[in-house]
Amino acid sequence: MKADQNLTILKIGGNVLADPTALDAALTLFAAYPGAAILVHGGGKRANELLLALGHTPQMVNGRRITDAPTLEIAVMVYAGLINKQLVAFLQAKDCPALGISGADANAIQAHKRPVTDIDYGFVGDIDTVNAPTFQALLGAGFRPVCCAITHDGHGQLLNTNADTIASALAHALAPHYRVTLDYCFEKPGVLLDADRDDTVIPHLTPVDYARYKAQGIIHSGMLPKLDNAFAALHAGVHQVRIGHVESLRSGAATRVKI
Amino acid sequence: MKADQNLTILKIGGNVLADPTALDAALTLFAAYPGAAILVHGGGKRANELLLALGHTPQMVNGRRITDAPTLEIAVMVYAGLINKQLVAFLQAKDCPALGISGADANAIQAHKRPVTDIDYGFVGDIDTVNAPTFQALLGAGFRPVCCAITHDGHGQLLNTNADTIASALAHALAPHYRVTLDYCFEKPGVLLDADRDDTVIPHLTPVDYARYKAQGIIHSGMLPKLDNAFAALHAGVHQVRIGHVESLRSGAATRVKI
Repeated sequence: MKADQNLTILKIGGNVLADPTALDAALTLFAAYPGAAILVHGGGKRANELLLALGHTPQMVNGRRITDAPTLEIAVMVYAGLINKQLVAFLQAKDCPALGISGADANAIQAHKRPVTDIDYGFVGDIDTVNAPTFQALLGAGFRPVCCAITHDGHGQLLNTNADTIASALAHALAPHYRVTLDYCFEKPGVLLDADRDDTVIPHLTPVDYARYKAQGIIHSGMLPKLDNAFAALHAGVHQVRIGHVESLRSGAATRVKI
Repeated sequence: MKADQNLTILKIGGNVLADPTALDAALTLFAAYPGAAILVHGGGKRANELLLALGHTPQMVNGRRITDAPTLEIAVMVYAGLINKQLVAFLQAKDCPALGISGADANAIQAHKRPVTDIDYGFVGDIDTVNAPTFQALLGAGFRPVCCAITHDGHGQLLNTNADTIASALAHALAPHYRVTLDYCFEKPGVLLDADRDDTVIPHLTPVDYARYKAQGIIHSGMLPKLDNAFAALHAGVHQVRIGHVESLRSGAATRVKI
């Protein structure tokens, strides 16, 4: 049974978190969504700053971050603690019924530690299950979950999971129950044809366009996993995916990804 | 309308948090409570360790801790982040439907910054309101809230609040709706006649006994606010208050405070 109720999932990126004006605007946007809503946030730069302040060196292998034990502790402190609770307190001040959770809370998102192959990523979690009944119960009680990028394995181990992936997995899991809009909020007005020109937003992006832009090197690097996640969500029954900054998401000028 | 449903509120202290064996036993006790249940935890020693590791000096005035801005950030990271999420993950591994919250989440506990008199305590929150409908909604949905000692002022400011006080305030606020048992779990088997002898547990403590033991100096220092909270909770309609370590709480040998 597909419910008629709208659910908007807003993912806010690190650059939005780091900019108080942009963050306030994003939280105002979130508080004003009609229907049900979930916020997903990453960690911004605070985790790295804290890691360095505590004398740890960020571990990288082939350009990929390794989540060793101290890094995980700091990620949990910063993502699930400082950032999550500040966002919740800011939203409550806007009369938004925010309730901050990690994937461990109410067993919301269960993951497994990424298997060691040529690289040991450490305490990184690949998602197994999004607990749709948990989110339905919280949303049904009138709360707006605020999800940080921490999951758990069901055996007492917390894990670090990419926030874009969490937003996409939530959209997948809740698409059978809600008419889901997935909004990715970052610092640009949308997916750009020319990364240096904010007036080159692609208004609608189809899989055919995407393949072409990718082949031409117009869309590249960090935007690729975001768009791959977006198309996967749409194929899983998500109603729409929008990508942009707060103003373009609000005005409708953000990139709309469609299949 | 007074509900018949039992609610047990378990407060675990810093020494229990710091002892993995005692902590595991306390979480097993909590997971096994019949009826509804809420866990309240303090911060243990991790916040101080982190404060020192980051080069801050704990600020004290007249022997009382001052929560300056860096101390608050660290308290939020450690209490609402690291400790709260580890407890939730451990409880989930015991199939306990734990959901970790601060007072900001779902506007659960609102407080105001303690007014500056001769001492400025900084970002310390004195509780104004426990949001009973929030706890009823979460408990009614089958969750077991795990509350850290962080509150908010409703205007976006997080605050640090004593965990014993939070446990007592929860018991007060929920007594009209549940048959509330308040369990204080610490490292001793109960309130002791002789602090050095664990076989001197006071089995039942009445207000008359308490006044006498206080006058005689038998009960003193850290136990006084705990017991003042306990009697206040009983006067507010809480069914029973028990004080002891995990084994004595489980076996019934803990001190039972009664009016």
